Amino acid sequence: MIRKPRLFTPGPTPLLPEAQAALAAPAIHHRTATFQAVLDRVRENLKYFYGTENDVIFFASSGTGAMEASIANLFSPGDHVLVATAGKFGERWVELATAYGLRVAKVESHYGRAVSLDKIKETLKEAKDLRGIFFQTTESSTGVRHDAEGIAQLRQKIRPDALLIADAITGLGTTELDIDGWGLDVVIGGSQKALMVPPGLAFLSVSDRAWERAKTAKLPRYYFDLQREREAARKHDTAYTPATSLLVGLAVALDRIRQLGRENLIRNAQVLAECTRQAVQALGLKLYAEVPADALTAVSAPQGISSTEIAKQMNEMFGAVVANGQGSMKGKLFRIAHLGYYDFTDMAGLIAALEMVLTHLGHPCQLGEGVRAAQSHYAEVANPVPAPATD
Amino acid sequence: MIRKPRLFTPGPTPLLPEAQAALAAPAIHHRTATFQAVLDRVRENLKYFYGTENDVIFFASSGTGAMEASIANLFSPGDHVLVATAGKFGERWVELATAYGLRVAKVESHYGRAVSLDKIKETLKEAKDLRGIFFQTTESSTGVRHDAEGIAQLRQKIRPDALLIADAITGLGTTELDIDGWGLDVVIGGSQKALMVPPGLAFLSVSDRAWERAKTAKLPRYYFDLQREREAARKHDTAYTPATSLLVGLAVALDRIRQLGRENLIRNAQVLAECTRQAVQALGLKLYAEVPADALTAVSAPQGISSTEIAKQMNEMFGAVVANGQGSMKGKLFRIAHLGYYDFTDMAGLIAALEMVLTHLGHPCQLGEGVRAAQSHYAEVANPVPAPATD
Repeated sequence: MIRKPRLFTPGPTPLLPEAQAALAAPAIHHRTATFQAVLDRVRENLKYFYGTENDVIFFASSGTGAMEASIANLFSPGDHVLVATAGKFGERWVELATAYGLRVAKVESHYGRAVSLDKIKETLKEAKDLRGIFFQTTESSTGVRHDAEGIAQLRQKIRPDALLIADAITGLGTTELDIDGWGLDVVIGGSQKALMVPPGLAFLSVSDRAWERAKTAKLPRYYFDLQREREAARKHDTAYTPATSLLVGLAVALDRIRQLGRENLIRNAQVLAECTRQAVQALGLKLYAEVPADALTAVSAPQGISSTEIAKQMNEMFGAVVANGQGSMKGKLFRIAHLGYYDFTDMAGLIAALEMVLTHLGHPCQLGEGVRAAQSHYAEVANPVPAPATD
Repeated sequence: MIRKPRLFTPGPTPLLPEAQAALAAPAIHHRTATFQAVLDRVRENLKYFYGTENDVIFFASSGTGAMEASIANLFSPGDHVLVATAGKFGERWVELATAYGLRVAKVESHYGRAVSLDKIKETLKEAKDLRGIFFQTTESSTGVRHDAEGIAQLRQKIRPDALLIADAITGLGTTELDIDGWGLDVVIGGSQKALMVPPGLAFLSVSDRAWERAKTAKLPRYYFDLQREREAARKHDTAYTPATSLLVGLAVALDRIRQLGRENLIRNAQVLAECTRQAVQALGLKLYAEVPADALTAVSAPQGISSTEIAKQMNEMFGAVVANGQGSMKGKLFRIAHLGYYDFTDMAGLIAALEMVLTHLGHPCQLGEGVRAAQSHYAEVANPVPAPATD
């Protein structure tokens, strides 16, 4: 049987076909008026995608590069920072901060839970010299959503001088973030997520307060220098050679997002996520995340069946790539993405395939039950076009 | 909500991604060694796809061009021919033969039924001067399958001198045809069907007996001259400018078909067709075709609901393009394709969408029931990889 390869991983996600076509277009040189127009369009539309008036700076790098930039540009050796960590990506903040010689106050949760606002509050009160707060809006390793607004309010109230830095790599385009209203100083994104293009570009929105801080920050930086990129942007340029084809593809994807509307892109992920949550629960599975995000759904493997095997069979039987758990979560959960270019038909087909795999692996479930739960929710919320009278 | 455009029409069908990439490659000139190698590879692999030792000739044209070629090259004015017609494409044989001044003995069936072998037998016996027999292996307008082997046996027994000409445009790659064993003199194909490339190329396999007949056939032809193309093929060439990009894409698609195996391509369509038949019947719908083909499934619209409305809502609500009935069948049936690049996940997603549309239009059906029927059949026949012990 034919098995089409299909990505249901929380990045990389399926490419927008128009962006894919643009990616395959002949190369253009980066110091030309044609490319300057692409840069200006991308910069303007990234602000729309973010929903911010702040500058959005980009780098040819993975998302981790932008995480590093937020540390190297805004802090000085020995600075005290809070890291809220609830999984692999929270741990990355700890590693990065430690690598740059910052003093880290770690506020941790068990995998599958969100970091408690009470614990953050406590640490904020204790750490009087705090210079920064780091967290994930969505912790992609466990599928947990953090209360970005709640964290922002605590910062505002208790440590207004600490910079608030959010890794929203899977949060952007899947969850409402009022960056300017809540005062998120830095928000980090990546191209291979809701933006529907391949990996290779990372983004940071930077607040006025963060730009002020950058002036006195002493950590070393060169490639990831935010100020240098900001100056280059004023000249419709980039400091170093930009990833031209990715930017050309991104320009097309951002046009499509403007056309669709940022709020509709977010709603699309939200509806597909809720359909998937209803579906897997109807099949007798449990959600891994206590407070699930809409970017992806982490599903606990049922008793006696490894998620490694589920992911393997999804691929071998149906060509569908879902993500296994990472590190110590390997075998315990699998993850299904909703961010970016997915629709009802993708989701329903995937659930049907999952039902087949679960049955095949001996998990008792009724074929069609998960699909039905997803359909019922979709019919309820997705406001289908009303049917005109039949002809 | 995002709605991905998806073709479920019995041509054009979804493109094989590797072929799509090849189609977008820079143009190559057609009188070069590079392109000669493409031509040789296509010609060799077309014989594999057809499953014949006969020459397979191709033209830059739609399938109708190859139908015309089979008449213009093999007949003389006033020749008496039998046309078995069970739908729009059977009627095209009648129109073509009439346009070229042939005398047509029409053996007809009602839409939705196959032409009766008894009636063909009767006409074969009566028409002692018969020079040719035309039919469709699959009548795509009604989803009916013809008994190609049965027709071939009758020809062999009663009118062995009449040429047997099959329009297998949607039959190739979806049904077993023993072209050489059964003695099918001409078998016609098109690129936008099971071959997974865009429209624009048409094919004919030509038997030795047909080549003999071509020598004395008096109808006029120029562009569609089979003999001229055969001679060009011997020189690794074509008579006129070939559709280079389509042929480059086709070469890639044929490589993939060789890798997959012709019999597996056919089986893929067969399994997906049977899943779909089970699904729509579980939803209380009726198959339009008495003897359904595996290339596509024609489904009768339920009482009180127009298939025009079903097709419209499939597209508006889910981006899925299914085919409405043609001509007088418009509003009465819709058609779902299985030929070429489709898999379980496509089919299951489509059925889930159809359930939503039917419910939306007021047809009483249980969400998930169609999907379950399809899953049950697939699980039974598709021999999934056995699950190893979990880790």
